[in-house]
Amino acid sequence: MSRKGTLFVVTGPSGAGKGTVLGKVFESTDHLYFSVSATTRAPREGEVDGVHYHFITREQFESLIENDRLLEYAEYVNNYYGTPLAPVEEHLAQGDDVVLEIEIQGARKVKARRPDAALVFIAPPSFEELENRLRGRGTESEETILRRMETARRECAGMEDFEYIVLNDRVEDAACELKSIITAYRCRRENRDFSLN
Amino acid sequence: MSRKGTLFVVTGPSGAGKGTVLGKVFESTDHLYFSVSATTRAPREGEVDGVHYHFITREQFESLIENDRLLEYAEYVNNYYGTPLAPVEEHLAQGDDVVLEIEIQGARKVKARRPDAALVFIAPPSFEELENRLRGRGTESEETILRRMETARRECAGMEDFEYIVLNDRVEDAACELKSIITAYRCRRENRDFSLN
Repeated sequence: MSRKGTLFVVTGPSGAGKGTVLGKVFESTDHLYFSVSATTRAPREGEVDGVHYHFITREQFESLIENDRLLEYAEYVNNYYGTPLAPVEEHLAQGDDVVLEIEIQGARKVKARRPDAALVFIAPPSFEELENRLRGRGTESEETILRRMETARRECAGMEDFEYIVLNDRVEDAACELKSIITAYRCRRENRDFSLN
Repeated sequence: MSRKGTLFVVTGPSGAGKGTVLGKVFESTDHLYFSVSATTRAPREGEVDGVHYHFITREQFESLIENDRLLEYAEYVNNYYGTPLAPVEEHLAQGDDVVLEIEIQGARKVKARRPDAALVFIAPPSFEELENRLRGRGTESEETILRRMETARRECAGMEDFEYIVLNDRVEDAACELKSIITAYRCRRENRDFSLN
């Protein structure tokens, strides 16, 4: 029997650098599938269907909910966001590891449903640094920054519930830590697919 | 409160390359302490007390046994071999990770006594390759090689009981896997020693 993959759920507050860290990890890791979320919101400029999101209708989304075809979902500002179950299960069955990059409440829902998932929290080195990063973008109003910082403080208070914490001070170090977590899972006996002869 | 280290027990059949893999890992990993075994056998040429072994008398060894100061021990061909508990505990308390390189029965004893220890089995890529390596040394008689191969087959049959399996095909890859296992433990929430501010 061949090995099944591991589901890695990567979460953390906005501004912690999840996307950048994951980008580095994907550059150098094979057999790793990035789960693309589905949403009912309209594509923004430059967003590609099937790459950034699966853009679907409200009717299609509600049909996925009714048929239990989502690993988790949530509704924000009248739009649905969720993780389609089928591609995740297919890749795991093929022996690929799967990465979900989702927000913290979604991560908890996945863990409740799939206790064998590995939860990784990517944390900023400090709240001061997080605030610098949000301001550095130069795209957000003062009010938005303050609201995001409040959210980040609340979210980071919950990081004690997660199994792995990766501190994103230098992105290369954080990527190395995340990749090590994935490699260590692949070295687990139950994930090893060989017999000596 | 500061973090406690993790105890890594590295085992595998003779000829699997445990020492070479560990040498590579120690080159590039700080806060990692290598546990030196105690023995009552006489030093061989080139062996340094406190580096290769702690060379002690039979009387000293039996006093360690009586006072429960050994993590595990065994007797082979009239000589004792064992792991002194004190330096292991001191380094773990300081937050260093500790590596024991011991034979398979010893590894099982350590796990029974310290269920939080991480057991890593270093496996040769195949029995054929293991036999080539043993012959390649050019120092062993045919009889010894056959006996060692028999032992290795028996030992590898037990590798299913270990938590992590590192396949030593290329030593660099094996060292990278072992280092990843150590790094992943360091990323576990309970081993992270920081709070955001």
